[in-house]
Amino acid sequence: MSFRYPNGKKYEPKRNLERKNVVKKDDRFSNRGMNLEEDINETNEYYRSHGIAIIHKKPTPLQIVNVHYPKRSAAVVTEAYFQKPSTTDYNGVYKGKYIDFEAKETKNKTSFPLKNFHEHQINHMKQVLSHGGITFIILRFTISNEIYLVYASDIIHFFDEKITKRKSIPKTFIEDVGTLIEIGYHPRIDYLKIIDKIISTE
Amino acid sequence: MSFRYPNGKKYEPKRNLERKNVVKKDDRFSNRGMNLEEDINETNEYYRSHGIAIIHKKPTPLQIVNVHYPKRSAAVVTEAYFQKPSTTDYNGVYKGKYIDFEAKETKNKTSFPLKNFHEHQINHMKQVLSHGGITFIILRFTISNEIYLVYASDIIHFFDEKITKRKSIPKTFIEDVGTLIEIGYHPRIDYLKIIDKIISTE
Repeated sequence: MSFRYPNGKKYEPKRNLERKNVVKKDDRFSNRGMNLEEDINETNEYYRSHGIAIIHKKPTPLQIVNVHYPKRSAAVVTEAYFQKPSTTDYNGVYKGKYIDFEAKETKNKTSFPLKNFHEHQINHMKQVLSHGGITFIILRFTISNEIYLVYASDIIHFFDEKITKRKSIPKTFIEDVGTLIEIGYHPRIDYLKIIDKIISTE
Repeated sequence: MSFRYPNGKKYEPKRNLERKNVVKKDDRFSNRGMNLEEDINETNEYYRSHGIAIIHKKPTPLQIVNVHYPKRSAAVVTEAYFQKPSTTDYNGVYKGKYIDFEAKETKNKTSFPLKNFHEHQINHMKQVLSHGGITFIILRFTISNEIYLVYASDIIHFFDEKITKRKSIPKTFIEDVGTLIEIGYHPRIDYLKIIDKIISTE
């Protein structure tokens, strides 16, 4: 027996419902690590609510062209365009220090493509370094779900090499200079644990 | 003799054209101090380009509801709403220190209305203070074009007094605890000169 919708179209159960019981290799990570931005936001919220650090993601920069002001309700932006960010996405304060970083992920298995970063962001990190801020990149390899913290100072020369035709950072290099961040439950990505090491040796 | 538009409406010269030659008291400030945000952005750009500090204004937070992706041209946000900021507008790094501030102006002559600040922003400043960041407010009285820097620590109790029905900070109090920022040409609002005093006494 088959069912039909009122429009006559035959009902067919959705494919992903059929697949419900097929356990994928990565299902144990399904609640975490699926979206780097969400995991970092959750981690920052943990840091904030536990009095550890104040670090926020900056809002997405938009060029607002048109705003509509309807009577008796909130203003609506009806035309806006995405702008390239002039800084990294995250910054804040930890133990009195200025913290500034960018987070990126790749599906690539063996290297991290440089095109993931805007030139503005690289220049921003260079400037932060020169003013004594702590700046780094959190890189996630989505296939293996490995997350590395790499200090900007260790990696920034790759972007100058962009001119010399290099298009990515080899994963082996990231493993070598970076630190693997253990994925936890709460907070999910405890990156400040790694930052502690350089603060304590100052 | 009088002129008429094609629709029959009589032509009348615009009022502000007639006033063209009337020199207002504040005309010498017409290129500066007219908009606090622009002046601070210009100042931050001066600091950045002269290697003094890296301080940026955060983008306006918007909740994006609809995005249209036309073929062969840039994505357009067609529906978005303004959100209350969860932090102050400006932050960055100066001499390795975390800098965080808000800038507000008022047409009021004798006091600064507390309603200019969101509760989130006040809580954010309290948190930044507790983590060793340098946090303050830049207040401009537009009528007299006086700009004060007031440390959050000197002013934050006023917001707790909000509960006790206080609705503004008296100007005399701001003059007392704050520092008047001299308005210059380049940079326009050299607020870091004031911050230098507390950094050098640490």
